[in-house]
Amino acid sequence: MRKVILSFGMSLDGYIARPDGTVDFLVNDAEARTIMAEFFATIDTAIMGRKTLDDAIRMMGGTYKAPVKLETYVLSRSLAPGKFVGYEVVGDLRKLVEELRHRPGKHIFNMGGGELGRSFLEADLVDELFLGIVPVLLGAGRPAFPGGFPQREFRLTEHRTFSASSVLLRYERCRIGS
Amino acid sequence: MRKVILSFGMSLDGYIARPDGTVDFLVNDAEARTIMAEFFATIDTAIMGRKTLDDAIRMMGGTYKAPVKLETYVLSRSLAPGKFVGYEVVGDLRKLVEELRHRPGKHIFNMGGGELGRSFLEADLVDELFLGIVPVLLGAGRPAFPGGFPQREFRLTEHRTFSASSVLLRYERCRIGS
Repeated sequence: MRKVILSFGMSLDGYIARPDGTVDFLVNDAEARTIMAEFFATIDTAIMGRKTLDDAIRMMGGTYKAPVKLETYVLSRSLAPGKFVGYEVVGDLRKLVEELRHRPGKHIFNMGGGELGRSFLEADLVDELFLGIVPVLLGAGRPAFPGGFPQREFRLTEHRTFSASSVLLRYERCRIGS
Repeated sequence: MRKVILSFGMSLDGYIARPDGTVDFLVNDAEARTIMAEFFATIDTAIMGRKTLDDAIRMMGGTYKAPVKLETYVLSRSLAPGKFVGYEVVGDLRKLVEELRHRPGKHIFNMGGGELGRSFLEADLVDELFLGIVPVLLGAGRPAFPGGFPQREFRLTEHRTFSASSVLLRYERCRIGS
């Protein structure tokens, strides 16, 4: 069964980015790159929000290109659905995830946290959390888990620590009967 | 050297309590009680905010009594400083902590997170974080680390996991030259 995995790095006080969107506080050493490579080997599909796409296009100099081979979907309320170079714009999150789950493939990466993560959690579409926690309190930033969704319980399935004091925590969703 | 330890249990999305102040989501099993007993054996002094005192008095039926033998200080901008049964009200956090550090004793417990934790972090008085992370996303609540203090770096010194999927993370403050 293909899982939807919500994954990001965050500060100890729960921010995925500084107020201006920069993420310089995230650890990007050899250990972190190894973890990310392992993670990317388990997924073949990414779903991001329109703002994350805009940020990526800006950082990439005008054109989106996935860092690895990934079927990429962009959720948007403002853009018209359709296929573009490197990604497809969709409007209905539940329908998209249902269709993806019924197709064979690797796991599905819910990129970025923040508002799209909230939409996933509100619709109870997150099967796993894969969180990197870096040892810094920022005091300000963009929240990893903006509120506004019902309570969701999880079970810890993996934890690792790294020389740079980062911690990786992996959880699976506990649904009634699961 | 006596350390100031900021400690609390929090949800994965960084809340120390539900919007109404309840903390039923925190794990209170035998493992958690063992950890708390170990922690309480290392401290002899607690500093809390006035709101935490009010909550404690209400829950205790009208009189404050520390759960273990603890020298208890209550930070308040509204109450006049002075000694009361079971606690002393003080107005100046930096002065209090400086005085306590120069007296012999065990470590100092910064109780509760939230606004008092922010004051401690703003004044850079936190030497350790001792955090219990419970495996639930609440979606709403009282933030463990309300923003509004400068960036603070830490180093992971201990991590443990528990059968109820909770994680204990302990960090020490990295200050320039330390």
